[in-house]
Amino acid sequence: MGHGYDTGRLNLPFTGICTFAKKPFEPDWSRLDADAAILGAPFDAGTQYRAGARFGPRAVREASTLFSFGHAGAYDHEDDVTYLGPDVQIVDMGDADIIHTDTVQSHANIEAGVRAALRAAALPVVIGGDHSVNIPAIRAFDDAGDIHILQIDAHLDFVDERHGVRHGHGNPMRRAAERPFVSGLTQLGIRNVSSTAKDGYDDARAMGADILSVRQVRRLGARATAARIPPGARVYITLDIDAFCPSIAPGTGTPSHGGFLYYEVLELLQEVAQAHEVVGIDLVEVAPDYDPSGSTAILAAQILMNLLGFVFHARRAAG
Amino acid sequence: MGHGYDTGRLNLPFTGICTFAKKPFEPDWSRLDADAAILGAPFDAGTQYRAGARFGPRAVREASTLFSFGHAGAYDHEDDVTYLGPDVQIVDMGDADIIHTDTVQSHANIEAGVRAALRAAALPVVIGGDHSVNIPAIRAFDDAGDIHILQIDAHLDFVDERHGVRHGHGNPMRRAAERPFVSGLTQLGIRNVSSTAKDGYDDARAMGADILSVRQVRRLGARATAARIPPGARVYITLDIDAFCPSIAPGTGTPSHGGFLYYEVLELLQEVAQAHEVVGIDLVEVAPDYDPSGSTAILAAQILMNLLGFVFHARRAAG
Amino acid sequence: MGHGYDTGRLNLPFTGICTFAKKPFEPDWSRLDADAAILGAPFDAGTQYRAGARFGPRAVREASTLFSFGHAGAYDHEDDVTYLGPDVQIVDMGDADIIHTDTVQSHANIEAGVRAALRAAALPVVIGGDHSVNIPAIRAFDDAGDIHILQIDAHLDFVDERHGVRHGHGNPMRRAAERPFVSGLTQLGIRNVSSTAKDGYDDARAMGADILSVRQVRRLGARATAARIPPGARVYITLDIDAFCPSIAPGTGTPSHGGFLYYEVLELLQEVAQAHEVVGIDLVEVAPDYDPSGSTAILAAQILMNLLGFVFHARRAAG
Amino acid sequence: MGHGYDTGRLNLPFTGICTFAKKPFEPDWSRLDADAAILGAPFDAGTQYRAGARFGPRAVREASTLFSFGHAGAYDHEDDVTYLGPDVQIVDMGDADIIHTDTVQSHANIEAGVRAALRAAALPVVIGGDHSVNIPAIRAFDDAGDIHILQIDAHLDFVDERHGVRHGHGNPMRRAAERPFVSGLTQLGIRNVSSTAKDGYDDARAMGADILSVRQVRRLGARATAARIPPGARVYITLDIDAFCPSIAPGTGTPSHGGFLYYEVLELLQEVAQAHEVVGIDLVEVAPDYDPSGSTAILAAQILMNLLGFVFHARRAAG
Amino acid sequence: MGHGYDTGRLNLPFTGICTFAKKPFEPDWSRLDADAAILGAPFDAGTQYRAGARFGPRAVREASTLFSFGHAGAYDHEDDVTYLGPDVQIVDMGDADIIHTDTVQSHANIEAGVRAALRAAALPVVIGGDHSVNIPAIRAFDDAGDIHILQIDAHLDFVDERHGVRHGHGNPMRRAAERPFVSGLTQLGIRNVSSTAKDGYDDARAMGADILSVRQVRRLGARATAARIPPGARVYITLDIDAFCPSIAPGTGTPSHGGFLYYEVLELLQEVAQAHEVVGIDLVEVAPDYDPSGSTAILAAQILMNLLGFVFHARRAAG
Amino acid sequence: MGHGYDTGRLNLPFTGICTFAKKPFEPDWSRLDADAAILGAPFDAGTQYRAGARFGPRAVREASTLFSFGHAGAYDHEDDVTYLGPDVQIVDMGDADIIHTDTVQSHANIEAGVRAALRAAALPVVIGGDHSVNIPAIRAFDDAGDIHILQIDAHLDFVDERHGVRHGHGNPMRRAAERPFVSGLTQLGIRNVSSTAKDGYDDARAMGADILSVRQVRRLGARATAARIPPGARVYITLDIDAFCPSIAPGTGTPSHGGFLYYEVLELLQEVAQAHEVVGIDLVEVAPDYDPSGSTAILAAQILMNLLGFVFHARRAAG
Repeated sequence: MGHGYDTGRLNLPFTGICTFAKKPFEPDWSRLDADAAILGAPFDAGTQYRAGARFGPRAVREASTLFSFGHAGAYDHEDDVTYLGPDVQIVDMGDADIIHTDTVQSHANIEAGVRAALRAAALPVVIGGDHSVNIPAIRAFDDAGDIHILQIDAHLDFVDERHGVRHGHGNPMRRAAERPFVSGLTQLGIRNVSSTAKDGYDDARAMGADILSVRQVRRLGARATAARIPPGARVYITLDIDAFCPSIAPGTGTPSHGGFLYYEVLELLQEVAQAHEVVGIDLVEVAPDYDPSGSTAILAAQILMNLLGFVFHARRAAG
Repeated sequence: MGHGYDTGRLNLPFTGICTFAKKPFEPDWSRLDADAAILGAPFDAGTQYRAGARFGPRAVREASTLFSFGHAGAYDHEDDVTYLGPDVQIVDMGDADIIHTDTVQSHANIEAGVRAALRAAALPVVIGGDHSVNIPAIRAFDDAGDIHILQIDAHLDFVDERHGVRHGHGNPMRRAAERPFVSGLTQLGIRNVSSTAKDGYDDARAMGADILSVRQVRRLGARATAARIPPGARVYITLDIDAFCPSIAPGTGTPSHGGFLYYEVLELLQEVAQAHEVVGIDLVEVAPDYDPSGSTAILAAQILMNLLGFVFHARRAAG
Repeated sequence: MGHGYDTGRLNLPFTGICTFAKKPFEPDWSRLDADAAILGAPFDAGTQYRAGARFGPRAVREASTLFSFGHAGAYDHEDDVTYLGPDVQIVDMGDADIIHTDTVQSHANIEAGVRAALRAAALPVVIGGDHSVNIPAIRAFDDAGDIHILQIDAHLDFVDERHGVRHGHGNPMRRAAERPFVSGLTQLGIRNVSSTAKDGYDDARAMGADILSVRQVRRLGARATAARIPPGARVYITLDIDAFCPSIAPGTGTPSHGGFLYYEVLELLQEVAQAHEVVGIDLVEVAPDYDPSGSTAILAAQILMNLLGFVFHARRAAG
Repeated sequence: MGHGYDTGRLNLPFTGICTFAKKPFEPDWSRLDADAAILGAPFDAGTQYRAGARFGPRAVREASTLFSFGHAGAYDHEDDVTYLGPDVQIVDMGDADIIHTDTVQSHANIEAGVRAALRAAALPVVIGGDHSVNIPAIRAFDDAGDIHILQIDAHLDFVDERHGVRHGHGNPMRRAAERPFVSGLTQLGIRNVSSTAKDGYDDARAMGADILSVRQVRRLGARATAARIPPGARVYITLDIDAFCPSIAPGTGTPSHGGFLYYEVLELLQEVAQAHEVVGIDLVEVAPDYDPSGSTAILAAQILMNLLGFVFHARRAAG
Repeated sequence: MGHGYDTGRLNLPFTGICTFAKKPFEPDWSRLDADAAILGAPFDAGTQYRAGARFGPRAVREASTLFSFGHAGAYDHEDDVTYLGPDVQIVDMGDADIIHTDTVQSHANIEAGVRAALRAAALPVVIGGDHSVNIPAIRAFDDAGDIHILQIDAHLDFVDERHGVRHGHGNPMRRAAERPFVSGLTQLGIRNVSSTAKDGYDDARAMGADILSVRQVRRLGARATAARIPPGARVYITLDIDAFCPSIAPGTGTPSHGGFLYYEVLELLQEVAQAHEVVGIDLVEVAPDYDPSGSTAILAAQILMNLLGFVFHARRAAG
Repeated sequence: MGHGYDTGRLNLPFTGICTFAKKPFEPDWSRLDADAAILGAPFDAGTQYRAGARFGPRAVREASTLFSFGHAGAYDHEDDVTYLGPDVQIVDMGDADIIHTDTVQSHANIEAGVRAALRAAALPVVIGGDHSVNIPAIRAFDDAGDIHILQIDAHLDFVDERHGVRHGHGNPMRRAAERPFVSGLTQLGIRNVSSTAKDGYDDARAMGADILSVRQVRRLGARATAARIPPGARVYITLDIDAFCPSIAPGTGTPSHGGFLYYEVLELLQEVAQAHEVVGIDLVEVAPDYDPSGSTAILAAQILMNLLGFVFHARRAAG
């Protein structure tokens, strides 16, 4: 690197420019060359309670440095596996451009980023922003084959339209279900009152959604829950941080008590990554300024890095 | 409403005057006409460690707007029930008047509020304030028939007197047990050292209390725990937010680790509401300024709205 | 009030439902009957850095209770005047309805509120929300005679259009200057880099704006600064809280160091209220969650209540 | 000290038990032997808005360690003086015992502490707690000769009685003025609306108070302001931290914008200490949990240590 | 105590000088005479992410007052035992002196403190500071017989050397394993990526460590886990607060999701204290400024006081 | 940039990777080619009270994006100048590598960065970290000609040695004064007690330092203060953020009340930049986690960007 340090860098977590996992930044989206491409989508005008998810990408990138010790990969003693070794290339695309007051254009810019990643055959990983950023992310898959959506979330997000709103953070799963290339939805963690009323649940089920609450998933366990996704499905994972219990994810716009604990989601993601091709990921609704301890962003980074580890370990294993 | 909006209001959670659940405010307590009447009791001079519960009523009201989406009730997909539909009338009485430096008069004012609710045949729901507000609340039931008290709390609150103090937040259950119309107490969640010493436990048991720790309740489960309340008892529920684990309820005056998780209390309350007539409720010790994430107040609001849903669903079912 | 309290209420600041200054809430805008009408405009999708001004109305209302001691007015010993006595009627209209993702409709709803206040001959007082809420507020004055705008702000907010954005919080003064009924602008406190580039300043001056920095106003003093407003002008005051030094107003979206101190603005407002008819007010950009001490909202409430005192004292004096 | 450290202790500010300025703790009040005795008075039931001043003594003690570098005194290069050298003995008495729900007994315990300090011929320095703790502190001077009270505060605190309250934090100056041994009051920094209405000002002036606002003091300057205290008066200084601008003292119960800046109070105190015998001090209303930056407690500690330096420097100079 | 209070002190948690559990402070380490001696070790230069553990000792002491109600011991109704009665003498030694920029000397000073406690036959209890303070603490046992180390932690801390660092908070268990008098290590709670890479795990196992993750401990249960410690081993317990789930311990330097819940650790400690002689304790990595709710310090104090209760109850039972 | 956005990027402050002012990142220090080079120096082991300055570089970079609107430079209407236009090249070098527990090596790495900037003929701009990072920064100038140091700070930082410490944050000005190439020091803002005792002041003056307090600078004014720097001196500016009043800079390790206000420092820097060649800059002691409002980091970024504007405007003017 040319620092003149004789022994390389120790590279402690608190040093360095905050790209995701301190990976290279590639602002030229026509030159992406990586296994996974991280895109920030700092749009939060779709929120119905607390805003602030616009700072989600920055917070998750910063937190990701805690897990970036400069070893050649991340050793997990429980699995006895070193994840994300030097054979996995990750690049940070920076953020989609956001146009305040303009949902349509902001979403279009996010869609452009996801399309760029797909064009480069990189796994697109979108960090929100509110859950409405899932709408353009899914839209970008229109020529990428059928996908099944695995949503992990407190809220069903299946509102069709209220007062003309069709692209807020209460609408993405409805929008997804309307796409012809979305073959199904598995919606996990759904609980308590939200912007989706009874008719939204009815519609979702009518459109093929499999809806499970936290308690229902807990009773089933990770493996049986994962098994409800159709075999062979290519899976797009959309993870709303409010799926988790506010005890570990208070920094979000619409917290809902009774959420998942850490291992419940981690083990589910590990099962899914082993059994399915994961073709896209978004992690949304981290609003860091509502969590002065930083736990929420650390959770998001920890989950995302583990998920990427699982995905690429499975791909390497599958050869 | 006369806004001149052609299509009504979307009424997002972050808009509007913060009454409880955005329900009507009725400052004239002689004109209450509702199924449930919410009374703020912002008295916190009874606390022995951190104060701040005086802002509990405001915080819980504000948080309750997160669950007030303007649908005709709250649909719960796990129960397949829409709770708190248009047939349940809730009114916000505002706050009891508090006289700083004067516990006696402040308590008297709270008592006046609860009496007004009872007179109107509305379910009184008191939002504290510290746990000492339970003392005047219970006092108001002196001509309302026998009641059984279900306390959910970290602390036994059974101190008779220390240094002359008989009406602080360590005393309410002792004061309640002394009333002739209190037929018994079920005290759940009690753990760790507190202002009640060994003799307090001995006294409580001698006066008929059934005391269970979190671990004991956990082993029993919600149903068996609820079944320890005598059949037919008319139940007054007093819920100290510090009954919960500080992971979800850090914003309180005397946190105690090892508390209940969300569903443990929720399911217990659902069991109790189905099996018993609930005649009064207080929820105390939310000190919002010790929880910058807002989780504690959201928990209080979420539990309270669900409990009200359970109570009135059971009443309607009972016809 | 019917509480059964023999001696009325002490009504300490921390008690009671949070309307502005604990004044009556009137949700039916066709029935407004007051000297001043407070409208919350919790729209913050126009911000270019930190959001959160959507909670401005709630925070300012809550803070206003600190100055609401239930005396018959607010006695100021420096002026030897009791302001806002029983002859001044203030009503709280609640909030304009906000439609997330939809700037146009949200602004229309704010406009409807200001029109309702004007129709009732009440002084409209809008609490933002971000500065874009000034756009619909000014629009509502289209049949209310010529107005001169006094802006107190860190930023010029005179961007015409960038990337299609014409109604964000960087645009309101440009939009105002375009109205035929806006006879001029006095823009005070402007400093440092912002979304308005050099051409914006050139345009503003070309359209008749009088632009002064904090240091320039400081050198002139309150009286001479106020005297730059044309005699006889009917003045609309738009006060962006970031006009103030971040030392007293950190809770805002785009803080800028070097701002006004408290008395500088207070004395200026007092001069203006004495010399001019004040026909409308907005106070914007309070983002309370970025100020855990609460100072920013307290400042907003304190300034607003003093300004209302000055305005109605001058009206009574002019009688 | 017996640590076995060969070279003594560096004693950085963040180490060590938090007594005031790391001075010796003397819990036996019959054995006080010092020039100044620090007494914590953690009573905050007298507050009318935000509580939390009960943690004031702990916070001020903790902050005082920042100024305790273990040098033999505090060198001030502007004055070219080393203050609080080894000839000045300071002792920390710990806290008065507080009885929750019982203002009378709590105040009595504070009074006992001040009497103990006076009996030991030590300068009593009370750290509040809310301003009501001044009431018992003054009471303890009943056989200590005439005193003049210098109050530095945002609020006049001259309410006689409202709803029976005579010993809250809005009453202390009225209570003091009633004592025969209080020869006069100088009340500085008073501004804006508070619990004292117009009649309180009239009463205060009738009882001989000299009331000046921040702006009035600012125009006079420190020297001329100090000169308004009668020559020869023995001065008791009561300093409410809310006298200061919320920019440097946000951590308090009833903040009021427009307060004093640091040097304004420091220079005034220096003038007073040079011209008068200072016979007692209290510093009240530090509510540290409303100031996550810690600035308020640091201000309190910095002002208090400087004031003590001025007092004992003047005493030594006076011989 | 000489306060002149006729009835002693109520001694509420928020009053009084903050020594550990309000126990006596003994700065002269040659005069220690107690069953347990508490030593603060506010050194945090060994941290690899967030610092701030230097304020751990102060925060844990302050939090310990919440559990210090002045009863003669702590009654636990689940165990029906009064712990830490008058027969258990605890003394607070204050803090080891810390030399900024100098790890070697700071560690030496901590070692001196632990040696002093051991010399006095008191159980040394070190409150960190970061986990590197374990290095000098263990060093002090070099003539105290063989010890087995029970580490409860998220991280293995078994790095030998990186960039010359051998005494940071990633190294203590490696340093311990190298001592001849350390007979073995049981390392519990280890999870996720950290500064220890795969070779560190290999080394640890080669040097005799028994490593279990949170999930592995959870499956075994407290009793079976405790049983993995060799019978008859004299146990030194080192508890890194980040062993716990960030939901209850967010205030730490390197949080890791998926940690232990409260009872898991409590019950394990109770088992160990019953089955083994506990010869030393440290509790490290509480960084209170990252937890504005105070939960982390409360957890540390609650665990520590319970552990001391278990240890001395077992000793008394063993006679 | 290849985003496929037809109209470029709006590039709002909250979007994008956080390099300083969103300028290019150049990790290869042998390839620097710029007018100014920003180096993060996240070392905070030299602090004597609160740590956390290790997150200063990240916080200042993040805050700098608020002033990076993507216009071609920063227009200042008071000066009628567009600063930092396209002719000024700024590059972000990232951070020096920090070795925890090892002050010597960490400082060496910082020195290597400054040397790299100087070698590239770029103005080195170091963002701390604590003030000890000034020691290696100055060391790097040993073959760069004579320099005069302008220190703006609350503390003199002139301790020679205490307990062996010579490279902590209380020592840098002493270390600088010892260098043969440091021709003099101007030390501004010095006030109140700190780690430097009286002998440090004597030494500083004996070694040629010109020491002025805040009040002394205030009386002189910016121009006369700047004029005390010897004509023709090549100036290195070291700015400790605690030079400022805690009202605008609470987020620092050792706050000291009575500090500079914004324009006092800004105008001084403008005078210095016009009259002298500025050859190096460091800005230190921003500890963002002690300022939840973010004001401190915004101040640092705002001052730094203005200072860079002044420096290069003067250079361009000097041609």
